[in-house]
Parts: sequence; structure tokens; C-alpha cells
Amino acid sequence: MTQAAQLSEILAQPARRSVSLLGATGSVGASTLDLIGRNADAFKVVALTAKTNVAELARNARRFGAQTAVIAEEGLYGELKSALAGTDVRPAAGTAALVEAAMEPADCIVAAISGAAGLAASLAAARQGRRLALANKECLVAAGDLFMSEVRRSGTELLPVDSEHSAVFQALAGESQSGIERIVLTASGGPFRTWPVEALANATPEQALRHPNWSMGDKITIDSATLMNKGLELIEAYHLFPVEPDQLDAIVHPQSIVHCLVEYRDGSVLAHLAEPDMRTPIAYALSWPRRMSTPTPRLDLVKLASLTFEAPDLKRFPALALAKAALRQGGLAPTVLNAANEIAVEAFLHRRIGFMDIARIVEKTLHRSTHCLSGRPASDLEEVMAIDAEARELARDVMAHS
Amino acid sequence: MTQAAQLSEILAQPARRSVSLLGATGSVGASTLDLIGRNADAFKVVALTAKTNVAELARNARRFGAQTAVIAEEGLYGELKSALAGTDVRPAAGTAALVEAAMEPADCIVAAISGAAGLAASLAAARQGRRLALANKECLVAAGDLFMSEVRRSGTELLPVDSEHSAVFQALAGESQSGIERIVLTASGGPFRTWPVEALANATPEQALRHPNWSMGDKITIDSATLMNKGLELIEAYHLFPVEPDQLDAIVHPQSIVHCLVEYRDGSVLAHLAEPDMRTPIAYALSWPRRMSTPTPRLDLVKLASLTFEAPDLKRFPALALAKAALRQGGLAPTVLNAANEIAVEAFLHRRIGFMDIARIVEKTLHRSTHCLSGRPASDLEEVMAIDAEARELARDVMAHS
Repeated sequence: MTQAAQLSEILAQPARRSVSLLGATGSVGASTLDLIGRNADAFKVVALTAKTNVAELARNARRFGAQTAVIAEEGLYGELKSALAGTDVRPAAGTAALVEAAMEPADCIVAAISGAAGLAASLAAARQGRRLALANKECLVAAGDLFMSEVRRSGTELLPVDSEHSAVFQALAGESQSGIERIVLTASGGPFRTWPVEALANATPEQALRHPNWSMGDKITIDSATLMNKGLELIEAYHLFPVEPDQLDAIVHPQSIVHCLVEYRDGSVLAHLAEPDMRTPIAYALSWPRRMSTPTPRLDLVKLASLTFEAPDLKRFPALALAKAALRQGGLAPTVLNAANEIAVEAFLHRRIGFMDIARIVEKTLHRSTHCLSGRPASDLEEVMAIDAEARELARDVMAHS
Repeated sequence: MTQAAQLSEILAQPARRSVSLLGATGSVGASTLDLIGRNADAFKVVALTAKTNVAELARNARRFGAQTAVIAEEGLYGELKSALAGTDVRPAAGTAALVEAAMEPADCIVAAISGAAGLAASLAAARQGRRLALANKECLVAAGDLFMSEVRRSGTELLPVDSEHSAVFQALAGESQSGIERIVLTASGGPFRTWPVEALANATPEQALRHPNWSMGDKITIDSATLMNKGLELIEAYHLFPVEPDQLDAIVHPQSIVHCLVEYRDGSVLAHLAEPDMRTPIAYALSWPRRMSTPTPRLDLVKLASLTFEAPDLKRFPALALAKAALRQGGLAPTVLNAANEIAVEAFLHRRIGFMDIARIVEKTLHRSTHCLSGRPASDLEEVMAIDAEARELARDVMAHS
């Protein structure tokens, strides 16, 4: 780089960006704070939130000089207050405080609360009209139409944090919509990719939790073993990118190095590759349209030697087919799919159902839910939450009677 | 796509783009005309040129309603004139006419004359300040500094047509220079990738011409077998993209599906993949920043199943190391490298030297040339041509005495 170019880059550098982190003690939260800690000159922390881990939340709020620390579990307020005694950090607790934290002005809000619990806060963050680095899948899966209309209305810069969606975002940079033929997400195939299909019925939670490449929470690791995770990601991709459901597909790639393939109408395919490390997509979301340095391991294709690909086996992974069907159906079908899946995965983790029952319960719940047929989107978050709750009830009922 | 989006795309569509094609009867020329023929509403032809193939040139000039047809070989003027009798196509012949064709106003000039013969015409095209779709390697290899300063001065949109450089251009879209760590080009490894090194000395031209993936001219196919082609491409990449020599490297990828890897400082790698078909990069250069449809075969990773990578073996491929050294040396070293290589490849094709002699002759010529040490770029095309001629003489002399 010439000196003039270096100087103009330095001058173009914005002041420290203020960041709020909803879900600071999960794996995305920890990776985000690792990056912020390494780039203290570039970022300052506004609000940090956590579900129940008071000690970790308070430790990080002190370390990063947060303005606010919110614990979602209301009963833990006293504990948080004591842990923050003698600091300038304002403690708060409860779900309303979570939403308020999302409303505090910040240049970038990282929405990393997992599950439906993150919906209201992520939606509040989307209404700020600044930048939203989104790691909460449920916003797009359960309330995609609603969420995206808020994003568009407010002019929020929506940057996906999921590695696959960040990959697609990068592979689409500078492209016009008409050139895109297909977006293909990769799936590792999880721990059961090579198991005999008959053996899957007896797979245990311990076996399902052994993800070959990524270290993630339990729920998402089970979703990776069923490939429901990839199905949910196709639904997310539909809301994030300008494509129709039939332009989206998944391919199995056991090494988890290629994260997406965007196919263009001239025969070009742009792929995003990286060693599996969440700090890469998080860094991209924090620093876009520039790129910040990360200490992530660098890709070494000579060492990897081979990247392999195969079609997903839908007998082995019926959840993927269910998610694709819900995507085509649109409206509230993905909301029901997601809720039923959360219930089924929880039951599997508690050994109340077998591995292959997960997809079976989701399928039966989808068939029995009357909301899946209309194709109508939810009119507000309350409706999404009501249908989510109803679908959970329905899934429990399906489970009890099967 | 919404109707409004479709309409705005249609309104954004420019009028028919005028295209001149320098080197219309080679493989890039034929692929370009194939695309223009399929998109007659989008393009019109200004000038077509060829070296000696009068019949093909005249046939295409008639078919595409060219304004001018130029045959480089002056003695073929009469033949061309007869072949175009009764049409509105203006015939011309000789190297001066070639340069004049490059100066005729056109929205896009495809410079696809191979070898040093294309230098003057490509440089004239670069001076137009419109779009130059560049397939002539020598502009960048032999006269890179000079050529790029003309491109910058005139504000010409330079779009590379080489598949690897088009791939890099695409993988760099929307990125800022500071984010780039490394640009890696892929090489198939050619037909001798798995031969015992000892056997290479006896490799015949027929064996060297059996390229596993691409169908190209003889000279470039031999360069692919020695990996000199990849070395020349690294030199081109240095001139085309904002990187230093040590940020450029090559990796062997026998399937020729991945064409480049651009590594960013956040750990992301953007790769371009496509089935080997020159129509993909040509279409990109013609239609950029939009993408036009092509009838090229679509990538099917499930069918390919595996993509493999290995480090280039510099014992087997010393030409790659020579090209890298010339790149680091800069100035006129690449001019000498390129000229010596052309002479050595020609001698190999005529069975006057062995396969492993190609790199040996290039190396000795580089050592003996006094122009390689200064690092000074050529001041004009005449100097480039003089040094090119001198290096050819030197290479012949090296050959005669070894």
C-alpha cells in the first residue's frame, strides 16, 4: 500500500463504534467480546445481557466498562447488583430490561440470544435503524416476514452472523439480483452422516452432541445432527437474500470449510471458505464494509488436501425436507416448524424420545397445525408468540400420543 | 424479483454495446463470438482481426456485420478483399491496420491476440479509455508497468479475461485493499503432475499437449505443462490487483474447478469456481458490472465429489520459481523471462530441445541478460520490443551453446 493510501484509510477510519451485545455469555457472545478486547481502540461497549450467568456477565461488564448489564432472569437482580458494586455499570433484570437494552443507542447491536427468547429484543434492536449483527435465528425463522419488514422500514443495516449467511453476504457483495441463479449452503452432515440409517433410531444425545467441526450449544448441535439446522438456515437465507425458495439448496460437505456457494447465471460460482471459527463472521459483521484482522486459524488447503461434497440423504435427514416444505409453504409454517423442533430436541436431550422421533414429531405437528395452510404472515410479534406457544403445546400433545 | 425491480433493471440496460475483437479466430475469439451471437440484441461488432485465417475472419465479419475486418498478414489483403466482396465490411491488412482497428471507437475491445504480436494493438485499445477485456498476457507480463500506466492515465476499465484473473476480479468485488492478505491462483499441474521427475526430460510435445482440463493453443498448453503459465499469471496478477509480489502464490488443484482464492485478514477466503469454459470469464468482462447468461455447463459438486489441492513441486516445475523470481526482481526481468520462454517453447514444440530444457534456457537467458538487474521499467513500447527481441536472440544463443 502506498503512504497516501494508508493515510486515506486512517482518515476514513470512524471513531470508536459503540456495540451492545445481547447474549454476552453464549458462544457468539464470548467470540464477540474476544474480538472487541483485541480491538479496544475500535469499539466501546454499551449494554451486555445474559440469561442466568451473573458472574460472567458482571466480569465482562467490568472488563469492558459497559454502561448497562442486564440479567434476563428477574430473580437474579440482587446478585447482579452486588457483583457490580463499586462500578459505573447500571444493573437491570427481566425481559423488559432486555428489550430496553436493545433500544439503547448503539452503532451496532449483536443479537446473540438463542431461541424464541431473543425475538422481542432482536426486533427492538432492528427498529433502531443502525446496524444489527444477527445471530438469533428465530427472528428470521419464526418471524421472518415481520422482522424483515421492520428492518426495511427502519433502514437497519442487517449483517448476518451465522457463518453460512455471512458467507453468502460476502459472496454476493457487489452483485445485482438478476445475476443470481442459486444459493447453496453447506452442511457438515453431522456425526451420523455415515451411520447405517437403521442405527439412527438408537442414537443417544451424547452421540448426537459430537459435532465433527464446530463447538456450539446443545440445541444447535442436535439440529446439525438432524440437518434441521440447515433447513432453518435455508429459511433464514430466503429472508436475507433476494431469491425464491427454489433457488435455495443445501449440500453435504463434511469438512465444514466451504460455507456457501453462490451460483451466477454466467456459470461463475463464488464460494466462501474459512476454518470453522465464529470470530470470522462476527468480525465481518462488526467491521463491514471494511475487514478487521482476526487471530483465527488461516485456511491451509495443501494441509486439508481434499474437500468433498455429497447430496444430503433425505431418508437419513428427513428434517431437511420438512424445513424445505415449510419454506415453500411460507407464512406461519416455519414458525410452527421451529417451535415443534425446539420441543422435540429438548425431549430428545432428556431421553424422552429417540433421534428419529425428532423429525417425526415436527412433521405431525406441521400436519395438525391449522396455521400452516394459509400462507399468511403474522401481523405482529404477539401473534408469532401465540402461534409459537400453540405449536409447542401441539408438539407436546403429539409426543404424548405417539 | 418484484415487477418494479425488473422494470428498473430493464431501464438500466444500456443500448447495444459496440465490441471490437482483436484476435477473432483464436479460442478466446471464437468463444467471444459465440456469446455475441447468442446476445445479438446486446452487442454489435465494430472491428474483427485475425492473423492469417482469411476464411474464418471473412465468415464472421459477414455474419456479425462488422464495420472492419483486418488480416495481420499483409500479403493476404487481396484474398480478404475478395472474400468480403459484396458486403459493407471494410477490409484492411498489416500491423498498422491492426493498431488502427484497436483505435476505432468501441464500448469494449476484446484484446485476444496471443503473444508479443498483440502488444501494440492492446496498448492502443487501452488508450481509448473505454473498456478493455484483456486476454493478451504479454501486455502485463512483458510491459506491465507501461501498460498499466496507460490504463490509469486514460481511465480505461480493464477487465481480465484469463479465467484466473477474472476469478480474482470477482472475488475482490466490493472489497477494500487493506483487507487482502493473499491472492492464490490455482494450477492444474498439467499432464506431468504425477510423472516421475526423471522421466520429464524425455517428455514429447504430444505428451505435453495433453492438457487434462482446458483446450487451448499449443504455446499456452506447454506453459501449463511447465507451470510457466501460472508464473506468468502471477506477474499479471501483480499488475492487475493491489498486492505486493509476496502476497501472490500458486497452488496445484488438478480438477481446474477452483480458479482462485482471495484470502482476507479476518480469516475469510473467497474462491471462484466454474467448469473450465472461457465463455464464463469472457461474459463477465463483456457484461460487468452485471452478469449475462451463458450456456456453459453448470458446476455440479456432488458429481465432482472431491476437490484436491497440493503444493507445487518446484523440482518438477522450476519455471514457476523462475517466474516468481522475475516478479520480485521487477522492471524488465519479466520481459526477458517471457521472450526466452517463447523461444524455448517453440524449440520444444519443434523437438529441438527437451521438456526440462525449457526452464533451463529461460534461467540461463535471465542470468545473461543485463536488463534483469536494474529493476527499471521500460520507458516506451519500442524499448519493450527491443529488449524482447534482444532476449529472444540471447535465448537462441543460449540454446545453440548448450
